Amino acid sequence: MTSIAYNFTAPYQTPRGSAIRELAKLAADPSVISFAGGYPAAESFDLHGLRQAADDAWEANPLQCMQYGATEGLHELRDALLELSERRGIHANTDELLVTTGSQQAFDFLLRSNVVSGDTVLVENPTYPGALAALRLAGANVIGIDGDTNGIDADAVERVLSMLPSKPKMLYVVANFANPTGATLTRERRIKLLELAARHQFLLVEDDPYGALRFAGETVPPMRALASEVPSSEHWSVYLSTLSKVVTPGIRIGWIVAPAAVARRCVMAKQVSDMCSSPWNQAIANEYLRSSRFESNLPGTIEIYRARANALSDSLRQAFGDNLSFAKPEGGMFLWANFQGKLDMQQLFDNAVTEQVLFIPGSQCYFDTRASNSLRLSYATSSPEVIQQGVARLHRAYVKTV
Amino acid sequence: MTSIAYNFTAPYQTPRGSAIRELAKLAADPSVISFAGGYPAAESFDLHGLRQAADDAWEANPLQCMQYGATEGLHELRDALLELSERRGIHANTDELLVTTGSQQAFDFLLRSNVVSGDTVLVENPTYPGALAALRLAGANVIGIDGDTNGIDADAVERVLSMLPSKPKMLYVVANFANPTGATLTRERRIKLLELAARHQFLLVEDDPYGALRFAGETVPPMRALASEVPSSEHWSVYLSTLSKVVTPGIRIGWIVAPAAVARRCVMAKQVSDMCSSPWNQAIANEYLRSSRFESNLPGTIEIYRARANALSDSLRQAFGDNLSFAKPEGGMFLWANFQGKLDMQQLFDNAVTEQVLFIPGSQCYFDTRASNSLRLSYATSSPEVIQQGVARLHRAYVKTV
Repeated sequence: MTSIAYNFTAPYQTPRGSAIRELAKLAADPSVISFAGGYPAAESFDLHGLRQAADDAWEANPLQCMQYGATEGLHELRDALLELSERRGIHANTDELLVTTGSQQAFDFLLRSNVVSGDTVLVENPTYPGALAALRLAGANVIGIDGDTNGIDADAVERVLSMLPSKPKMLYVVANFANPTGATLTRERRIKLLELAARHQFLLVEDDPYGALRFAGETVPPMRALASEVPSSEHWSVYLSTLSKVVTPGIRIGWIVAPAAVARRCVMAKQVSDMCSSPWNQAIANEYLRSSRFESNLPGTIEIYRARANALSDSLRQAFGDNLSFAKPEGGMFLWANFQGKLDMQQLFDNAVTEQVLFIPGSQCYFDTRASNSLRLSYATSSPEVIQQGVARLHRAYVKTV
Repeated sequence: MTSIAYNFTAPYQTPRGSAIRELAKLAADPSVISFAGGYPAAESFDLHGLRQAADDAWEANPLQCMQYGATEGLHELRDALLELSERRGIHANTDELLVTTGSQQAFDFLLRSNVVSGDTVLVENPTYPGALAALRLAGANVIGIDGDTNGIDADAVERVLSMLPSKPKMLYVVANFANPTGATLTRERRIKLLELAARHQFLLVEDDPYGALRFAGETVPPMRALASEVPSSEHWSVYLSTLSKVVTPGIRIGWIVAPAAVARRCVMAKQVSDMCSSPWNQAIANEYLRSSRFESNLPGTIEIYRARANALSDSLRQAFGDNLSFAKPEGGMFLWANFQGKLDMQQLFDNAVTEQVLFIPGSQCYFDTRASNSLRLSYATSSPEVIQQGVARLHRAYVKTV
């Protein structure tokens, strides 16, 4: 047999991608308690309402559901998403919005149509591993800027910008209940980032999957909404969101609000990438958003997350005391915790696997491969009782490790 | 106001993309008869069966429908698609198959994970404009090789390969009822391409959206099926297909069969691109393929295409006589025709728009911008009666042009 030598030049092999996939395999074992995933709470899905929306969408126009649709998205759904964005303070018109297959695809299209290999992209450090993977595969020159419990440090962004030899293409940030830190960017920092984006002319990309899942504290408007207060910044402000966490990921509906010239390029990316998102799924999303069930189901969803966040915070405090520091989440799905003192995190992770509990080691969320005593814990998918058990297991793993 | 200067370095602005989008706008006018689109016949959709499949998928496991799923695809659907591929002569295992959002996404992932800017990709000339757009945006060095009524000229491929300074990454071909030419690649040429792929070590990518829509002539096995006859070629053979033309595009389900190492890279691309295809849509596809309605509905679908292909062929022959040459289609959706003698194709197109009939000018399907007296006509979306009217309009436009 001739030897097979695939000459893979594209950088599509990342050890972290494999690590995440390994985690997913471990998490599939029902006796494992996983704080590692990014799945939303299945108990929050309004199954009855979604089923009704599917029936209504089909009744209204089965052929529209089953035929190709416009690449930008179903007209009615784009209007519904414009209205939803409006309720979040974002004024936009149809030319500035397109439907995507989740907000992951929204970010992917932005990257593809704006960033070529070697272009600089700024991110909060740590940040969402899925964004890091996309950036790595795009060949971006990623610069991570540290954040704190108030989100990415906008002054540090300014300092980095003053030192960069050429301007970055983009700054990517999850401003509400960040993945992984759970932190929310303050209004002051948002305004500052908008000023920097307008001055240095880069795309300020806010990914907002979790913002509607707030159970404590005050809502801060999206940067795209605040752009009206900062001259010229609306030309550089991009908003990504999704129904995956507040309705269901099963229909894979996200959206982009961007300046029309940027949105047009994303439409081009979508055209070559998958033609259009499922017209039936789009029609279901449209019916659901217009049925008022979205608004009426959301408080119950938020309560689920509140109860789980409380269970996790309380259990951790009780089990670890001062050995573990974290800010109590005000919304979203994640709690970011730091162990005090020296700790072999790989050993902790291995012991946790033995104890049948999973988490994301903090180092996975940094673009640089810094040592980190942090861990990302999702409280989304387990009941308060299971969360307590999981924390007990995690504590056993910790005791074995120190 | 500061002037806005988006520094777009990524090549996401193609005049042809805009031209196609302009066409789509024109085609939306209900008084226009369009031979330009790539939509399948809506009358072929098994609405009752699809609705039943959706109900069954929901009944079986609503939470699975509404939660994220594995990036590779729903396990049951992958098995169903392996069985469907098997019925087409393709033996593969689970590691070699992943679910995509249509075959457009399948090609996109193959490109992203294998081709970097400057890499050489061979295509038939003319070829599917959607593939050309994806290749252009990927920055590929595209080499078009002419075909005839038997598909791409495999001897010409061999000559090109012998002259290339470095080996290509890929050869892309629609082997059955090609878009745009309608031609089917002969078995001999398929074998030859497999030999060349194995010898020169490039991915031989067969895109097969239409192969099951044969209404005349003999089926030729996919190259991935014939690979068993050509040593080592199975390591270089990739098969893409979709349910969009034989079931419905509304659920956006396609798939890739590729060597495991290549498939793994496509899974990585899917992970950063959209996490997973809609689990509900996947469950619907699975139920539908297993319900036997797929097989029982297909003959009726094929009859629809046969009747429309006949109507188009007969009307063209009657209206244009020897002024227009074409091979009568044996399957698929497209008829490729060439005008005899000199003709101003832009003028013909403009006159056709005035007469409210649309087609794709052949030049859109060439990577080079050669002059072409050809046009691509899709007979998929209009009834035989409407096709006759459309041809009468096209003939009036022609008479005004010559």
